[in-house]
Amino acid sequence: MSKTNPGNFFEDFRIGQVLRHATPRTATIGDVALYQGLFGSRFAVQSSDAFARAIGYAAAPLDDLLTFHIVFGKTVPDISLNAIANLGYAGGRFLAPVFPGDTLSTVSEVIGLKENSNGKTGVVYVRSTGYKEDGTEVLDYVRWVMVRKRDESAPAPEAFVPVLPKALPIDSLGDAVPFLDRDGWDDALAGSPHRFGAYAVGERIDHVDGMTIEEAEHQIATRLYQNTAKVHFNQFAERQGRNGRRIVYGGYVISLARSLTFNGLGNAFHVAAINGGRHVNPTFAGDTIFAWSEVLEAGLIPGRDDVGALRIRTVATKDRPCADFPDRLEGGEYDPSVVLDLDYWVLLPR
Amino acid sequence: MSKTNPGNFFEDFRIGQVLRHATPRTATIGDVALYQGLFGSRFAVQSSDAFARAIGYAAAPLDDLLTFHIVFGKTVPDISLNAIANLGYAGGRFLAPVFPGDTLSTVSEVIGLKENSNGKTGVVYVRSTGYKEDGTEVLDYVRWVMVRKRDESAPAPEAFVPVLPKALPIDSLGDAVPFLDRDGWDDALAGSPHRFGAYAVGERIDHVDGMTIEEAEHQIATRLYQNTAKVHFNQFAERQGRNGRRIVYGGYVISLARSLTFNGLGNAFHVAAINGGRHVNPTFAGDTIFAWSEVLEAGLIPGRDDVGALRIRTVATKDRPCADFPDRLEGGEYDPSVVLDLDYWVLLPR
Amino acid sequence: MSKTNPGNFFEDFRIGQVLRHATPRTATIGDVALYQGLFGSRFAVQSSDAFARAIGYAAAPLDDLLTFHIVFGKTVPDISLNAIANLGYAGGRFLAPVFPGDTLSTVSEVIGLKENSNGKTGVVYVRSTGYKEDGTEVLDYVRWVMVRKRDESAPAPEAFVPVLPKALPIDSLGDAVPFLDRDGWDDALAGSPHRFGAYAVGERIDHVDGMTIEEAEHQIATRLYQNTAKVHFNQFAERQGRNGRRIVYGGYVISLARSLTFNGLGNAFHVAAINGGRHVNPTFAGDTIFAWSEVLEAGLIPGRDDVGALRIRTVATKDRPCADFPDRLEGGEYDPSVVLDLDYWVLLPR
Repeated sequence: MSKTNPGNFFEDFRIGQVLRHATPRTATIGDVALYQGLFGSRFAVQSSDAFARAIGYAAAPLDDLLTFHIVFGKTVPDISLNAIANLGYAGGRFLAPVFPGDTLSTVSEVIGLKENSNGKTGVVYVRSTGYKEDGTEVLDYVRWVMVRKRDESAPAPEAFVPVLPKALPIDSLGDAVPFLDRDGWDDALAGSPHRFGAYAVGERIDHVDGMTIEEAEHQIATRLYQNTAKVHFNQFAERQGRNGRRIVYGGYVISLARSLTFNGLGNAFHVAAINGGRHVNPTFAGDTIFAWSEVLEAGLIPGRDDVGALRIRTVATKDRPCADFPDRLEGGEYDPSVVLDLDYWVLLPR
Repeated sequence: MSKTNPGNFFEDFRIGQVLRHATPRTATIGDVALYQGLFGSRFAVQSSDAFARAIGYAAAPLDDLLTFHIVFGKTVPDISLNAIANLGYAGGRFLAPVFPGDTLSTVSEVIGLKENSNGKTGVVYVRSTGYKEDGTEVLDYVRWVMVRKRDESAPAPEAFVPVLPKALPIDSLGDAVPFLDRDGWDDALAGSPHRFGAYAVGERIDHVDGMTIEEAEHQIATRLYQNTAKVHFNQFAERQGRNGRRIVYGGYVISLARSLTFNGLGNAFHVAAINGGRHVNPTFAGDTIFAWSEVLEAGLIPGRDDVGALRIRTVATKDRPCADFPDRLEGGEYDPSVVLDLDYWVLLPR
Repeated sequence: MSKTNPGNFFEDFRIGQVLRHATPRTATIGDVALYQGLFGSRFAVQSSDAFARAIGYAAAPLDDLLTFHIVFGKTVPDISLNAIANLGYAGGRFLAPVFPGDTLSTVSEVIGLKENSNGKTGVVYVRSTGYKEDGTEVLDYVRWVMVRKRDESAPAPEAFVPVLPKALPIDSLGDAVPFLDRDGWDDALAGSPHRFGAYAVGERIDHVDGMTIEEAEHQIATRLYQNTAKVHFNQFAERQGRNGRRIVYGGYVISLARSLTFNGLGNAFHVAAINGGRHVNPTFAGDTIFAWSEVLEAGLIPGRDDVGALRIRTVATKDRPCADFPDRLEGGEYDPSVVLDLDYWVLLPR
């Protein structure tokens, strides 16, 4: 019997199954520096211990998406090694701040299964939860992936598709943020005069800047997260594949888009939830990523007068500036330049 | 009104104006590692806590140029987002050692303005100062940039061009270096037998080695510094521009040249001042950088018997070894291979 | 006289000569993060402080090969700057765990010399030892390199070729590993159910995955180690050379192969010794590296019931999957895809 990991196939999953994933990972200021070098983020809370302390954090927390990628990466060898497609995310909530020195690990539970009518594949729904070493939950989210069957004659399981929220309710947000001392918030240092109250529902923002991705960059990021999906690393195999080249990890594009949003959303210091996301088209090295955002909702978190929440939709494109907000076309299809459509909550100081 | 940063145009600046720049940044050993991986520096003081402690530092300080780039990067969104050219640096002084854990921020003051005769652009002179979170000044320097006007019909301000020193006086150097315990300085570990006294004014050194720049490398460095100048990152836009490709941040070439100077100036452990610098030609990914140096002056700092100062001119070239010291040609123009002409003070143990 | 380092030529070496190398280097969690980003290692002990502490380490130790590369890099300017070929390694032993914060330096002793019959070159054997700042030995190993003579008429030294062990004896292993608390070892978190007893001598494992190398990646790694060998960095010079391009540092391939072995050897958490290694063919950017391993020996370390030792031979290839274990061909030559043949000891929990 082989000692290498064959991954799980569709018939290996069952509802209620719990998978404790390898490899625990201590997040460090080394990771923070590398993430900074890859994405160029400028949100002051994550960039400066002094700024973070002035508003009530113990230190600069990790970028929320760095936490997301580390927690996510661990699930790949068990959940999506035999996946054909990552179909979606829902209900992602950041539950506690993560600081350099915290060790992260991930546990997933299978919450839905549905074999496809072709009998060759099925959709697996998992809720994955990231923990610190002391058991503190830092993140949970649902994703669903289309996974190959090992044996096409294996019987289909009883189909169960979980009901997933279209968006997290506003009163579930904010657990990863201490009560802020707003007197400590310095707009000049933060880089934006626009606090929560300055944004209106329906407002659209072109984030202007574009950033080109290199092979070395997305490979370094994806290995940093210990994400082992083969399509990101193996040019020998991909040369013969559908695209002829390596695909950039979808989470790389999410981080790049988030970083671009600083120009227009500079005080949106915290991603509180990921309501949903679609990787509309694959991204490759050499592509230049642009982004625009729309404010979908705005609201206050009960019991908190320090921050407000904006529900944002960010659309990222490749090789196409976003001054005219490229989006779905009349027929419902996306403009072919669109690579990402992400729905999430951010917090801003009031 | 747009929430994205349009940057300042020439008519937005006025003499005496003070700009507090975003984003404060805690420098860490993560940044140090990445800087090491990008430039391969071998100066022992910055590489080894043990070496640094043996001579009187509390720990290995940051590479001076890493401090420079972080302090500089913050000025870009406010000063040079609409710049056509970075014209020069002067009077740069390192004022205190910076250690991992220090949070850096930058404030600039406009000290000169002069509209160009074409009425479309003007030159802005700023003195930028980098601070630690406790207010300690770590660096100040002047740079001047040519900036576009938003409205060509805007009236020209009264012209004022500051008088700038050609070089820092020797008695202004050394504040960023504690008094060294020279008994702790180990030439073998430092990698050079040549201390201050071994160098003669007029001496030229070919640094021999060459290093090729990759797109991923300069992008990672420039994002690490939170420098947002668009020309370094956006291949989609640059493809249609004058050069057809991204330009390497000039400071990247400065760091690479400094790293190459180790071979010949191994004990020149500290950059004490940047007297002036010119980016003579643009550098692109794929270029291989070489460097040579000339000793312009040598002197002692009043009150210090531990170190001596050399004023060095380092010339960096692309795709041209420097055994014959490529320089200005007879007509005063530079040899076309030259990309950098930098005048600075370094300290060496006596 | 030139102040740049000309390196040593064959006639500069003598038996018994001791070389204290520059530059001491404090290894940090920054280096760990960058190493992680470059190689994507998933061994839990080095990835997680919490995992490491649960089994008896004070914290997550450095990856053994990161230690090796830092210790090795220092020897290049003195030993192999004028080398034509790195001929082999032997007798490499890891002697103490290295943790972030430790400062590493290297001393080498010349233990063998043999001029080649052409009178132009000779072979130099050195034993290099890596130390912490408190004098703790962390690694020693022998390597031999073919070095140019400066002056072909220089007389040949008396030839002395040291007797080198084919493999380290099993009772010399394990000094770099504390006695493990096996109750703390969590197979799920470690990512493999296969402990020491699951492996049989003669067993072969195809590690399945492939990883493509980019220029930026190997340059960043090699500079991180302060390895100054010119062939890795200077495309201008190499364009005119034998290969027309930069060569990837052999140690980069070793680290990549080691990282690939996780898939099949996930509990082999520690490289205890490097018995020997050959870089069979050069590796270039763009190559995709695959690997397979064979268990050569298995044994217990006297006095230790916590771990067992496997002597592993790992063969790495480029642009060739290893399902059929490409190896030496019938005539004794290697399959042309083979780039590395490495013989080493690893430890696994029992």
